[in-house]
Amino acid sequence: MKRLYHWPLDPAGRLVRLALGERGEAFETLESPPWSPHPDISRLAHGAVAPAIVDLKTEPRMFACGTRAICEHLAETGDGTALLPESAADRAEARRLWAWVEAACEEVTDTLLTERVMQWVRRDRQPDSARLRRGAHALRGRLTFMNGMVEINGYLAGRQVSLADLAAAAHLSAYDYFGDVEWDAVPDLKEWYARLKSRPSFRPLLADRLKAVRPVAHYADLDF
Amino acid sequence: MKRLYHWPLDPAGRLVRLALGERGEAFETLESPPWSPHPDISRLAHGAVAPAIVDLKTEPRMFACGTRAICEHLAETGDGTALLPESAADRAEARRLWAWVEAACEEVTDTLLTERVMQWVRRDRQPDSARLRRGAHALRGRLTFMNGMVEINGYLAGRQVSLADLAAAAHLSAYDYFGDVEWDAVPDLKEWYARLKSRPSFRPLLADRLKAVRPVAHYADLDF
Repeated sequence: MKRLYHWPLDPAGRLVRLALGERGEAFETLESPPWSPHPDISRLAHGAVAPAIVDLKTEPRMFACGTRAICEHLAETGDGTALLPESAADRAEARRLWAWVEAACEEVTDTLLTERVMQWVRRDRQPDSARLRRGAHALRGRLTFMNGMVEINGYLAGRQVSLADLAAAAHLSAYDYFGDVEWDAVPDLKEWYARLKSRPSFRPLLADRLKAVRPVAHYADLDF
Repeated sequence: MKRLYHWPLDPAGRLVRLALGERGEAFETLESPPWSPHPDISRLAHGAVAPAIVDLKTEPRMFACGTRAICEHLAETGDGTALLPESAADRAEARRLWAWVEAACEEVTDTLLTERVMQWVRRDRQPDSARLRRGAHALRGRLTFMNGMVEINGYLAGRQVSLADLAAAAHLSAYDYFGDVEWDAVPDLKEWYARLKSRPSFRPLLADRLKAVRPVAHYADLDF
């Protein structure tokens, strides 16, 4: 049994939940919002941040922090869906695109998603419209790129799901909670997202409901 | 035999050269400066950037782009020094700190290193003193953190060298070319760097000489 420290709308935490789900790993969750980390986190290691997993069965308790350490650990241990392809060439391509997704979505998360969270969840301040526009513009560019990738192969890094897809879906699902993804502009990516949404690992994410704000109507709809 | 596309002062390319050296892999190099990528790179994959390795022995030629794809590939294949520790807990910690190094150094590279390169190598413009100051300030913070880590264990993620150390040394060595690392303020990190510098994998980096500008006097000095 593993314990996951995460915050439901953090794309990094969402990726880890998807990866744990794909591997069929049982886990309990504790919330650790970015603005108020759970006190356990800082005790794990100097400079540690959520998402973090702790294996409750090992002594001393094995822990891993951050999407790279956690997902590579899950990829090289346990059962369930393989998170990376088998051949060296395909693994390299999946990791390249996984890294690309995380870097490319960082600007969108830092602007668009952060403004939405500040507006609806924290209610700290009015959203900064320049940052919302900048984030929306960046997101459109990323969507177009990803649409082209899945149009060729069905999935981002080939014909099977990998950490590149889970990372992309983790980010897009967080933006989609607030209705910020223009799915109709990217039909191949929309079809890809429908396939990912219907995977059992996705169910817990679609059930997320923040107290402060409900998701858009189509958020959990498999036929959106 | 592998071919590496890189630019000598790019920290990402330096990490790959160190990792290839530690694994004892023979490789030839082709230059691919960030401002003028080698034309082969864009033919590898849509959106690919240097550093990139191509395996000249495989058919079709296996390639990997970016530090994550390349270094994880090298860690799971071949011989030489293990790039990641053996136990799951230690691997997770090495990957957490490797990711931390890359994220933490990004600001320093984007400001301090970029300004130096623009000033001396490209001679495009006068350096922006505000960006130099911001980068130098960020670097001091990172050095202090890393000094604390190596003080405890000898290496960043434990008692043996790992990708976390190679990534840190790759970044610091690029800043050090221009004399921007205040080693005397971080004695434990200085001692750690002296140990890394004396590894055979480091020799090619210390032999780098850009046409446009020579390194500071102590750059290649093992007893600096």
